[in-house]
Amino acid sequence: MRLPHAWFIACRSRDLRDRPLGIVMQGTPLVLFRGASGTPAALEDRCPHRNAPLSAGRARAGELECGYHGWRFDPGGACAAVPGLARRPERAPRVPAFACEERDGYVWTYSTADAEPRGPPFRFPHLGERGYAAVRREITVRSTLRAALENALDVHTAFLHGGLFRTRGRRAEIEVMVRRHRDRCEAEFRGEPRPEGLAARLLAPRGGMLAHVDRFILPSVAQVEYRIGDASHLVVTTAMTPQEDEAIRLFSVATFRLPLPGWLVAPLVTPVARRILSQDARMLALQADNVARFGGERFANTELDVLGPQIARLLEAAERGDGGAGPVGAAAPEHEHRVRMRL
Amino acid sequence: MRLPHAWFIACRSRDLRDRPLGIVMQGTPLVLFRGASGTPAALEDRCPHRNAPLSAGRARAGELECGYHGWRFDPGGACAAVPGLARRPERAPRVPAFACEERDGYVWTYSTADAEPRGPPFRFPHLGERGYAAVRREITVRSTLRAALENALDVHTAFLHGGLFRTRGRRAEIEVMVRRHRDRCEAEFRGEPRPEGLAARLLAPRGGMLAHVDRFILPSVAQVEYRIGDASHLVVTTAMTPQEDEAIRLFSVATFRLPLPGWLVAPLVTPVARRILSQDARMLALQADNVARFGGERFANTELDVLGPQIARLLEAAERGDGGAGPVGAAAPEHEHRVRMRL
Amino acid sequence: MRLPHAWFIACRSRDLRDRPLGIVMQGTPLVLFRGASGTPAALEDRCPHRNAPLSAGRARAGELECGYHGWRFDPGGACAAVPGLARRPERAPRVPAFACEERDGYVWTYSTADAEPRGPPFRFPHLGERGYAAVRREITVRSTLRAALENALDVHTAFLHGGLFRTRGRRAEIEVMVRRHRDRCEAEFRGEPRPEGLAARLLAPRGGMLAHVDRFILPSVAQVEYRIGDASHLVVTTAMTPQEDEAIRLFSVATFRLPLPGWLVAPLVTPVARRILSQDARMLALQADNVARFGGERFANTELDVLGPQIARLLEAAERGDGGAGPVGAAAPEHEHRVRMRL
Repeated sequence: MRLPHAWFIACRSRDLRDRPLGIVMQGTPLVLFRGASGTPAALEDRCPHRNAPLSAGRARAGELECGYHGWRFDPGGACAAVPGLARRPERAPRVPAFACEERDGYVWTYSTADAEPRGPPFRFPHLGERGYAAVRREITVRSTLRAALENALDVHTAFLHGGLFRTRGRRAEIEVMVRRHRDRCEAEFRGEPRPEGLAARLLAPRGGMLAHVDRFILPSVAQVEYRIGDASHLVVTTAMTPQEDEAIRLFSVATFRLPLPGWLVAPLVTPVARRILSQDARMLALQADNVARFGGERFANTELDVLGPQIARLLEAAERGDGGAGPVGAAAPEHEHRVRMRL
Repeated sequence: MRLPHAWFIACRSRDLRDRPLGIVMQGTPLVLFRGASGTPAALEDRCPHRNAPLSAGRARAGELECGYHGWRFDPGGACAAVPGLARRPERAPRVPAFACEERDGYVWTYSTADAEPRGPPFRFPHLGERGYAAVRREITVRSTLRAALENALDVHTAFLHGGLFRTRGRRAEIEVMVRRHRDRCEAEFRGEPRPEGLAARLLAPRGGMLAHVDRFILPSVAQVEYRIGDASHLVVTTAMTPQEDEAIRLFSVATFRLPLPGWLVAPLVTPVARRILSQDARMLALQADNVARFGGERFANTELDVLGPQIARLLEAAERGDGGAGPVGAAAPEHEHRVRMRL
Repeated sequence: MRLPHAWFIACRSRDLRDRPLGIVMQGTPLVLFRGASGTPAALEDRCPHRNAPLSAGRARAGELECGYHGWRFDPGGACAAVPGLARRPERAPRVPAFACEERDGYVWTYSTADAEPRGPPFRFPHLGERGYAAVRREITVRSTLRAALENALDVHTAFLHGGLFRTRGRRAEIEVMVRRHRDRCEAEFRGEPRPEGLAARLLAPRGGMLAHVDRFILPSVAQVEYRIGDASHLVVTTAMTPQEDEAIRLFSVATFRLPLPGWLVAPLVTPVARRILSQDARMLALQADNVARFGGERFANTELDVLGPQIARLLEAAERGDGGAGPVGAAAPEHEHRVRMRL
């Protein structure tokens, strides 16, 4: 699956320095480097001359030099020099270039070559906002994009993360509102009791009712939002970069405002987040391997699978170049239904 | 090659305890677990919900619980619970189940899903019988089933196991009777002198003529039987489990009654058996690799290849679902011929 | 790509002793062994009986014995014995045989089975000649034959081997004569100044104009020749053996006559040669991997790529069984052109 006209995080800002950096995005090898002013640039990672990877070359005065025969390219992909040529290169082939934007400490890269982006990259909510603290984390999972998104948003905590969140015993029946917009879908959990376990106690030391929304935003953002009254607010946002069909890089940012100071909470949240991510990564890999050895997916849904089918539908539209581009947000949802669930 | 309606050993009894065990049989991933009474059960190793391997889950009160979202299955493959559903699961999909029998310290599993077995599993001869001792051994070989069976039964000892059995010098001419029944074939060696070497000296310290039969029994049993008079009797029986097309698990049982006490012979036989198995495993892997790099088998037979072609014929019939099911044993052979050979 | 009727180096003489040696040439597994008089022989590395690799067997009295069932073959590939057969083998299948010649410390093998060679193998120039010293080196590169040949002959020293040879600063414009004959092509560099760097200073301590020719000779020889006056002469000849489509074994011989004694130069040249070879091997592997992940080559040429297109053309003719067989050497070139280049 390849999503055109989509922004994905290529790398953290601090991973792109003086040397060119080779990455893979949706199966396409890209080389990132910094132009003259330090602005990041992304080219197809293949020298048109003898197909050496440009990421094995050098950044030199804001241009990228191939390490084999020294051909040089500017941030726009044009050939700037072919060493040894008695004349200037006339029709030297250019390299496909991909738009880049650097924000929030990440380098975002556009998935369609030589194209003007249709909009800006996604913005992580509350990042750097007064009163909010943030914890970041990265991991690569062996999974399809769809399975990784569903994993980030479905309710499997009692089994996969038993002890960290929900517990197996109590099961209250609650209502879930499911909505799909043009560029996103979400599940709003109503009447959910404050969960037990360590993370919940950190989030809401005084208890209270929970406002909880799970959300998918095209092309590849999974977001889980919890509120308890006005005091506590936690948003875990994961922007996913499909490197290959079954290798997804997760850039996860938890932004939160709690009754406790951020400097106290962050070191407590970090190991929990790490453990959840690694349990999820392990299960996703097991799932991907099992799907592979059985020769393909054969999934069954119940009404509990509230977001999976909606995510699949939105991704298919995005793959056709549709979705995510129209008016979003406040508009009425395209689809809405209600489910009862025991949590 | 897949043989339907066949019993294979899935694992040793002692390898299946509280945790579910994932194995592969003829390319199909299976999960084994013990039901409420400790009886072994085998299901396809794939949760119908999101295709996670059930072998990564837990056995719980005689049922198998998926580790991802907690779906639960009984030993017959029916879905017993979907956690979170407000109502009981109505049409939750079941998982294909495979008949199991535990005997002789092995868990046998039937190769056709959701089917009543046509007969019982193979019984190892003389196991636990008074006067007989036994030595067991397991190994996985990289080989086709046919090549592994032929290897267990053909006469290559002078070259591959030189020194352990026959020696290169002396070559007496003997007669071999070859017979094929509906479910088996065998080669009876007549007038074979007592072989030299260590194993032979253990088997028959006082010398004497040898009764020697090599035997293949559908679906996958290779048996070598030696008698010297009434005092010495050795049967090496290997039940083979095709895991993949080129990975065969060998469960080998040597049962013997000798003029020497079993407790004395077993520690002497064990290292010899181990060495033979590992030499065979190495040659089978070399053969499989060589066949692969040449793009397929191209075998040539001489009249010495007494059982190989018969085994191939029986396996082909079994693959079509034929063979092994009709009356066996005392009935007249379907085929018989005689060969002269220099041993 | 497979070149018929071509001689390739199978191994160094000293690597073929008492045991059979398995190698791969153009994708075909071969077994080398020494016949009764020590003469090397090469057969397809597959026993016709059960397809075991003959290289896992033994050389015995000038014949090759399979390690599985002991079938024996003579240096011509005929079956000499099938152990156990009561009669002599009548129509036992033979094994394809490949002509061998041993010279210059290498075993050369002909690429077409059961064929009379159309000519002798390539001869390394000046090897063993009075006044010439020699340094040998072997390496296997992950590359196509064409890319490895072009790499050995094109001008990439400033970038890949910066510091060892040419330097980046000075760039004199010179003239290159390009010629293609029926069995070879060459680029003659005219007016090239004495290069700087360590290797150049060793080659021509007193400076002077340089005669420099880069040469490809069918089927797989790359040759770089430098002369400075009468005193200094260096020829680096690399005979390449395609093992697989992307695994090329390089047998490199530097023969040289210098104002300095050979025993002094050899230990200085050796580490330089080793470093060049390993830098080239690394870049070729990067190139091959990149071509693979982009799904195929897409090369662009400029007029500086003087030999690459000629090599491609000669190899394509050789692949069709053409080229290299007719009259060579002094005859007029089939093609000739002139290029200006800044070095």
